[in-house]
Amino acid sequence: MARPTPLSGFPEWLPDGRVVEQHVMDTLRRTFELHGFAGIETRAVEPLDQLLRKGETSKEVYVLRRLQEEGDAAAAGDRSEKQLGLHFDLTVPFARYVLENAGRLAFPFKRYQIQKVWRGERPQDGRFREFVQADIDVVGAGELPYHYEVELPLVMAEALGALRDVGVPEVRILVNNRKVAEGFYRGLGLADVEGVLRQVDKLDKIGPDAVAELLQAEQGATPEQAKACLELAAISGADTAVVDRVRALAASYDAVTELLETGLGELAALVEAAARRSPGVVVADLKIARGLDYYTGSVYETVLVGHEQLGSICSGGRYDTLASDGKNTYPGVGLSIGVSRLVSRLLSAGLVAATRGVPTAVLVAVTDEAHRDRSDAVAAALRGRGIPADVAPTAAKFGKQIKVADRRGIPFVWFPAQPGEDGATPEVLAGEVKDIRSGEQVDADAATWEPPAADLLPRVVPAAGE
Amino acid sequence: MARPTPLSGFPEWLPDGRVVEQHVMDTLRRTFELHGFAGIETRAVEPLDQLLRKGETSKEVYVLRRLQEEGDAAAAGDRSEKQLGLHFDLTVPFARYVLENAGRLAFPFKRYQIQKVWRGERPQDGRFREFVQADIDVVGAGELPYHYEVELPLVMAEALGALRDVGVPEVRILVNNRKVAEGFYRGLGLADVEGVLRQVDKLDKIGPDAVAELLQAEQGATPEQAKACLELAAISGADTAVVDRVRALAASYDAVTELLETGLGELAALVEAAARRSPGVVVADLKIARGLDYYTGSVYETVLVGHEQLGSICSGGRYDTLASDGKNTYPGVGLSIGVSRLVSRLLSAGLVAATRGVPTAVLVAVTDEAHRDRSDAVAAALRGRGIPADVAPTAAKFGKQIKVADRRGIPFVWFPAQPGEDGATPEVLAGEVKDIRSGEQVDADAATWEPPAADLLPRVVPAAGE
Repeated sequence: MARPTPLSGFPEWLPDGRVVEQHVMDTLRRTFELHGFAGIETRAVEPLDQLLRKGETSKEVYVLRRLQEEGDAAAAGDRSEKQLGLHFDLTVPFARYVLENAGRLAFPFKRYQIQKVWRGERPQDGRFREFVQADIDVVGAGELPYHYEVELPLVMAEALGALRDVGVPEVRILVNNRKVAEGFYRGLGLADVEGVLRQVDKLDKIGPDAVAELLQAEQGATPEQAKACLELAAISGADTAVVDRVRALAASYDAVTELLETGLGELAALVEAAARRSPGVVVADLKIARGLDYYTGSVYETVLVGHEQLGSICSGGRYDTLASDGKNTYPGVGLSIGVSRLVSRLLSAGLVAATRGVPTAVLVAVTDEAHRDRSDAVAAALRGRGIPADVAPTAAKFGKQIKVADRRGIPFVWFPAQPGEDGATPEVLAGEVKDIRSGEQVDADAATWEPPAADLLPRVVPAAGE
Repeated sequence: MARPTPLSGFPEWLPDGRVVEQHVMDTLRRTFELHGFAGIETRAVEPLDQLLRKGETSKEVYVLRRLQEEGDAAAAGDRSEKQLGLHFDLTVPFARYVLENAGRLAFPFKRYQIQKVWRGERPQDGRFREFVQADIDVVGAGELPYHYEVELPLVMAEALGALRDVGVPEVRILVNNRKVAEGFYRGLGLADVEGVLRQVDKLDKIGPDAVAELLQAEQGATPEQAKACLELAAISGADTAVVDRVRALAASYDAVTELLETGLGELAALVEAAARRSPGVVVADLKIARGLDYYTGSVYETVLVGHEQLGSICSGGRYDTLASDGKNTYPGVGLSIGVSRLVSRLLSAGLVAATRGVPTAVLVAVTDEAHRDRSDAVAAALRGRGIPADVAPTAAKFGKQIKVADRRGIPFVWFPAQPGEDGATPEVLAGEVKDIRSGEQVDADAATWEPPAADLLPRVVPAAGE
């Protein structure tokens, strides 16, 4: 076959990029587990009718067809199988998993899930057709206390914060609350809440004047109502003063409602706890409208500071009905990190780098093929003590074997002891080890020698930047 | 929606089953990395023509179609995109990855890959439509020394052996060599090697008499040639005596060829090294014919001892041409573990169990909602020292909070110190911790207390069996 070319929208990394991605996923998993989230994995496919249940077509589902479907079905007298599609997020499959296993799960159920999802959208910067998401959600049976709406973004702040030391930029989690927006709009006399949100969502793209016009033209708002909506959207801040400003604004328009007060109480609790536990990370931003059409309480978006134009890398919110089987309702709150979007930016902007693309810390040289078993024994002894080791592919000249290590970023080369002039066979595990970066070479025993901790495994470190 | 039912062939685990699967994958990854294999991940899709390149239709490819394909393509003036299918193994994508990135990889390139694959086959016991495979391969540029054919099955033996202590049964790796079979058949005068292998492959299903008949009817063998083929297939053993028996058999039929001798030399090297490094694991079995039509040297199959009827859980072999771009050829050798097949059997046969389905070691009780922040602080202190901790969902009666822990298998419940009668606020991190299995409750400080190492994380342990 001719040399294949990449498929647009289906990112793949070279081994050193994969070290970065794996480190990000391992770090997220570690933080999620410290917080008691159970890991689950759901199948990649869902019945198509479930994927499209909410009229969801913007996500561009990939539909599956078995190549031999027709002939096979006819031959086996098979009834037509359900049409299947690849999941476009991890929320729809999780809701289905909860319903399917409700009797065997303990609620509130906290789970994390790190998996690929697929969307047939047109690929562009930071937007892929196949990508990894890392989700956390808490789901309750019948009810779910508000405090989870405070905790979950803080878990994400901690997870992303744990990546700071490898060069991941600071994050800012922008929060809003559906009840605040809805309570305010209703107080103003605007009943089509979704419609207003849809216009406000265009603020960053078209600016306040155009939004004001749309609010009047499409939502039938008066100029004063439109002005009030824009004033609300202009409020943001990292402390509870934000809540007082919203309340004062609402009062000035005589638009204070019970729903608004409930929402402001929630928003205040979130901002306050966040300021205490992760100072500077969470910012109330009343402009956030995306997702408020389906979320029912808190809503979250997350930007990488300095990379805001990349869009949100971690979004989510509260659903009063994450799932329902008619009898029981399961409210939930969760957030989803776009791992591929994050990793792709880290790599393309040169923000982070792996110290090497292979796990190997030591390459054991081979003196001659007849004595390969001695090199194998050295490698086995090192591995037995947790030191990743590889044996040279061939008994080439030592200079060439050192190049094998050098090309892979392997820091150490081990030279097994050679039989002496008297023909005596030396201890198998005796030898010399060379740090090929400094050139320093010392006697060593494979039963006891250890590389410096920093060289044991590939590490992910901050890089120079683009 | 009504309660959904599972999709046949698309396995999913409850959280405790996922703990088992994750442990298996983590253990494999750890072993692969100790041996210097770099982790990569490839996209889930490949161009359909590549998936079907070798006339491969038995794997039942799933073809993708974007739901909005036609309208979208028309609107955007898009040219017809390549048809895509889900990969049915990790070898085809790896070969493509090698060609695509050849200039940026160091050869021999050792990689592991643990991912889902899809096959639209009829689901049955141990055979799924979506399942996880764990592959290791070494690929060379132009050439690949034979010693990798010895090493790779031993890496798999070590990886699977590392699972013995959690209850995974012993494995037996059955090996054969294409050169031995081909050399022997050609020596006998049977030129249609693939045809003979196809008949020999039916031995377990239809027995030697029927295979002898087929060899004569379909391959035009004489009764004596058929008898010789069956005698070869009857040879097996874990030491190099096996090689002597094959050579003697070939000599008795005057069927010794150079190719046979090359193959026997390779087989002897493999059996010998395996007997030394993993005694009892590798068995030469001249009956193995599966895969010999496309493998060019060693071939491997692996059974769980006591679960032989499950079929092979780890297969592979040597390809002289894993990939080729016309100019360069990339020979490879690799094996693939059927992780889902293995895990499914471990769980269904009750061979292994997780000590709990959540990572949480400690549930911190909440005295009253007004003091939730004190419980949060205790949990944060524990997590800061690597102890997975969760906070009770509500400030219910302590008995009920203990039940929350009990239902999840969380071993410890932490009770924050209560304000004294004098109203003094105790140290936030002071409290008592109860082992809810023994009922023992002791004073503890969240800045220093540690659970026993065995309770820190969920463990996977041998279970009673079915």
